[in-house]
Amino acid sequence: MKFLHTADWHVGRKLHGYDLSTEQADALRKLEKIAIDEKVDAIVIAGDIYDRGMPSEDSVRMVNGALKKLNLEDGFPLLAISGNHDSAERLSTGSEWFEATSFYLHTKLERAAEPIEMSGVQFFLMPYFEISAAKNFLGDETLKTADQCVRRIVSLMKERFKAGFKHVLVGHFFAVGSLKSDSETPSEVGGLEAVGIDELECFDYVALGHLHQHRASKSEKVKYSGSLLKYSVSETSDQKGVYVVDTDSETIAYKPLEPLNDVRVVKGLFENLIKPENYRQIPDDDYVAVELEDRVPIIDVMNRLKKYYPRIIELKRVNGRVNHENNGVKNLEKLSEMDLFKTFYKDTVGEDPDEEQCKMMEQALQDVRNKGENQ
Amino acid sequence: MKFLHTADWHVGRKLHGYDLSTEQADALRKLEKIAIDEKVDAIVIAGDIYDRGMPSEDSVRMVNGALKKLNLEDGFPLLAISGNHDSAERLSTGSEWFEATSFYLHTKLERAAEPIEMSGVQFFLMPYFEISAAKNFLGDETLKTADQCVRRIVSLMKERFKAGFKHVLVGHFFAVGSLKSDSETPSEVGGLEAVGIDELECFDYVALGHLHQHRASKSEKVKYSGSLLKYSVSETSDQKGVYVVDTDSETIAYKPLEPLNDVRVVKGLFENLIKPENYRQIPDDDYVAVELEDRVPIIDVMNRLKKYYPRIIELKRVNGRVNHENNGVKNLEKLSEMDLFKTFYKDTVGEDPDEEQCKMMEQALQDVRNKGENQ
Repeated sequence: MKFLHTADWHVGRKLHGYDLSTEQADALRKLEKIAIDEKVDAIVIAGDIYDRGMPSEDSVRMVNGALKKLNLEDGFPLLAISGNHDSAERLSTGSEWFEATSFYLHTKLERAAEPIEMSGVQFFLMPYFEISAAKNFLGDETLKTADQCVRRIVSLMKERFKAGFKHVLVGHFFAVGSLKSDSETPSEVGGLEAVGIDELECFDYVALGHLHQHRASKSEKVKYSGSLLKYSVSETSDQKGVYVVDTDSETIAYKPLEPLNDVRVVKGLFENLIKPENYRQIPDDDYVAVELEDRVPIIDVMNRLKKYYPRIIELKRVNGRVNHENNGVKNLEKLSEMDLFKTFYKDTVGEDPDEEQCKMMEQALQDVRNKGENQ
Repeated sequence: MKFLHTADWHVGRKLHGYDLSTEQADALRKLEKIAIDEKVDAIVIAGDIYDRGMPSEDSVRMVNGALKKLNLEDGFPLLAISGNHDSAERLSTGSEWFEATSFYLHTKLERAAEPIEMSGVQFFLMPYFEISAAKNFLGDETLKTADQCVRRIVSLMKERFKAGFKHVLVGHFFAVGSLKSDSETPSEVGGLEAVGIDELECFDYVALGHLHQHRASKSEKVKYSGSLLKYSVSETSDQKGVYVVDTDSETIAYKPLEPLNDVRVVKGLFENLIKPENYRQIPDDDYVAVELEDRVPIIDVMNRLKKYYPRIIELKRVNGRVNHENNGVKNLEKLSEMDLFKTFYKDTVGEDPDEEQCKMMEQALQDVRNKGENQ
């Protein structure tokens, strides 16, 4: 059979304050088109459908709409699990009814080892779980790591393996050997959750969610589909998309999802960044992380850059700022007011103030002092 | 056909800080038993299934469990709408899938005039709506009141009426002529929402939610089922339950839901309330509103009463307190410290302090003054 593997939709996610619902809705339409064009037999969604356990009504509307379209209108069987960003309880609403139309949504560990059989494939849907839930389900208080838990759950699955079937695991965890990006919360990809890839050898394919880069796993058949969109600057060079897996021909193809508005890095000196031949290459609606090469201060730099790149999400000085210590200015607080002025002027304008300017400044300082005494 | 009419479950509701989930789960089990015993052909739920648009995971678990049991396990068709306490968007999750098992959940006005036909009855499910939504749906900016909107929507329904069928409206609004209790938010039962009962004459039965007392409507066939439990002190004398409506024999029977723990008022003098023959009549787990008849102050009265009535939800002085003005004490702030003491002592103990006590108090006041000066 042929199935599409996606994960980490994170519906409701914002990018440095920008709402991404337009881009998400667009990506979901493109995902649907791939499923139709590729004539897949099913769609696997490996967790983190929502970005939050308590999604907004708009997010609920988008997810319900997408699932309804894919399952009820287009007729694709769906195989889905909850991720660590989803509320298992909220996401499971309706799940018992969904199965009438081959929409399998597992949010509880109790059902992980129940295979779902479809066109010669046994799918095992293992939702994201906490160690405490696994201890409880397996009745073993000695379990300490996700690796131990998964090993035990996989052994339960193996007992249900049928000869002549291919076996696919759908999971949401950090497989050891994977790379990670910034948009997964760091505390969530720690050691506790690391699961050894060797334990997953018994499966013909492992459809994972959790890490957002589809190249995160180096394994041939343990794959992260990657997130729906670029959700952090560290993902700018990542291509987002979905896997299309054919279990008969044993081929795995990555199909790109071109974003409506991209997330990209622009790098250069301020004077170059504001040149038409440079900024005109970047669509106004793209999200831009600016890597500024200048070292000198630039007044109101963010607002000035936003005229050319309206959706700046980050501004970094990649070469650092002019180092005051090297200019011989070690203790700003010890400088006289006039010396402070001269230092500031030079930092900002790039040269020393002339005599006339110094006189004006001295007069101004004198006026302020007099006013202060006459109050 | 025979159907059960319930509404206003308000799952997640608290009663003066007390969690009612145990009582709600119990009432839902009793409701199920009535449906089974009465062999109803369907269950109507007229809105406010949840108490909040953003229900807790525990509330989601309870509602999903109850709906699954009634529909998937017991096989009752369900006809439900959203109320003003529900989030239409969240509640509608799964609704398109539910219909495969005759679970009709309408949360949008757009579907109100689509009849659901079942055993010779046409059901019209009209969810709670804001005037703005009705304006939008009906394409008429001149609409101003709920009454006008309902009139228009009912006329759309009438166009769909089939001869030979009975017609039932399921709605969630304030029908004019009804009585109200305290647990509906006052602003929600105002004039804007009032709908004239005469407009509903064309239906054989109108299954309403919104008001919590099942006697709120005096009409023969426009009925509030009342809430699942007593959700305010004003409902203590109300019997909670569900209607069982038989459209063939045209009979309407009210079936009580006896609460696991009741909400009740106890009234009396403090000395009587703490007598065993009185407090032993009230189960410890019942929720008690105390109407205290005493007029004199009683030290630590709440904590003392809680020893006999552990779940006090309200304490009222029904005869008022002793009126200080009548005691000749008009301006407390003008009294000397000693006079304040004497007044307080008399109010509290019921008699004047004796000479010895006054001396002790004078000495104490003197000590405090000295300390203040020597600091």
